Amino acid sequence: MSHALTTYRTTILPEWVDYNGHLRDAFYLLIFSYATDALMDRIGLDAQGREATGHTLYTLECHLNYLDEVKLGAEVEVRTQLLGHDAKRLHIHHSLHYPGAPAELAASEQMLMNIDTRQTRSAPFAGNVAERIRQIADAHAALPLPAHVGRMIALPVRALG
Amino acid sequence: MSHALTTYRTTILPEWVDYNGHLRDAFYLLIFSYATDALMDRIGLDAQGREATGHTLYTLECHLNYLDEVKLGAEVEVRTQLLGHDAKRLHIHHSLHYPGAPAELAASEQMLMNIDTRQTRSAPFAGNVAERIRQIADAHAALPLPAHVGRMIALPVRALG
Repeated sequence: MSHALTTYRTTILPEWVDYNGHLRDAFYLLIFSYATDALMDRIGLDAQGREATGHTLYTLECHLNYLDEVKLGAEVEVRTQLLGHDAKRLHIHHSLHYPGAPAELAASEQMLMNIDTRQTRSAPFAGNVAERIRQIADAHAALPLPAHVGRMIALPVRALG
Repeated sequence: MSHALTTYRTTILPEWVDYNGHLRDAFYLLIFSYATDALMDRIGLDAQGREATGHTLYTLECHLNYLDEVKLGAEVEVRTQLLGHDAKRLHIHHSLHYPGAPAELAASEQMLMNIDTRQTRSAPFAGNVAERIRQIADAHAALPLPAHVGRMIALPVRALG
């Protein structure tokens, strides 16, 4: 049975919480950003791979759903699922959880683009990177679609007017 | 003529940039988060207003589009437009710019919910807060819709397969 990758674990730090002791919205994304760094390591775009290829990933677009409060000192983990990819892009989903727990504390859908930093333009993934992406895609092909994907932000229709 | 509110100005700090000297994805959102704090001040939910009402705003959902790199030391400003509201929610749009410049460096659409912190549940805005929201809504009613709203994340159709 395949699973989403557990890409990052951390404790909620004092500099990440607001006056209420709750994790501030931007720091949920910082935790997901570190998880993206860890995903880059797994596909061969760690510091050594970035140096060798001249490539890195840029975040093009990101959607976040805040599902529960997270408090100072809590231990959390990020699970990462590859939803799709093409020659230059990764479509991913991160979810935030207490370690081992099923409930999502937050969810983020993201589109990442492979960038040739020598020309600052998009470029196809290097061969060894593309191969590792295919392996993850194969492992994730049978995973169910997460709850919060393909969303648009809008006021509830009944509340309009 | 009405304008979006200029809610926040800052310099890009060393702790916000990655190994390339570029603003990290999560810190675009931190700048927008500070702009939301400034919007809260304007509608009467500053520290004193939060104390008086027991209310605060939670971010329910957030969408970000990254449109240009921003480098260490750059000066930037956030402009905030109220897209809609109901008795408990604000639907807002933040955009990031160099001071006075029209081009967007990033855009974020967000849904914020008024929360009664004494019961940790949603609640209608207090009367004086609702009145200030109406004033902003009136001032923003004729503004054009920003370019990046109502978006869903997906791979380009031609790239699939």
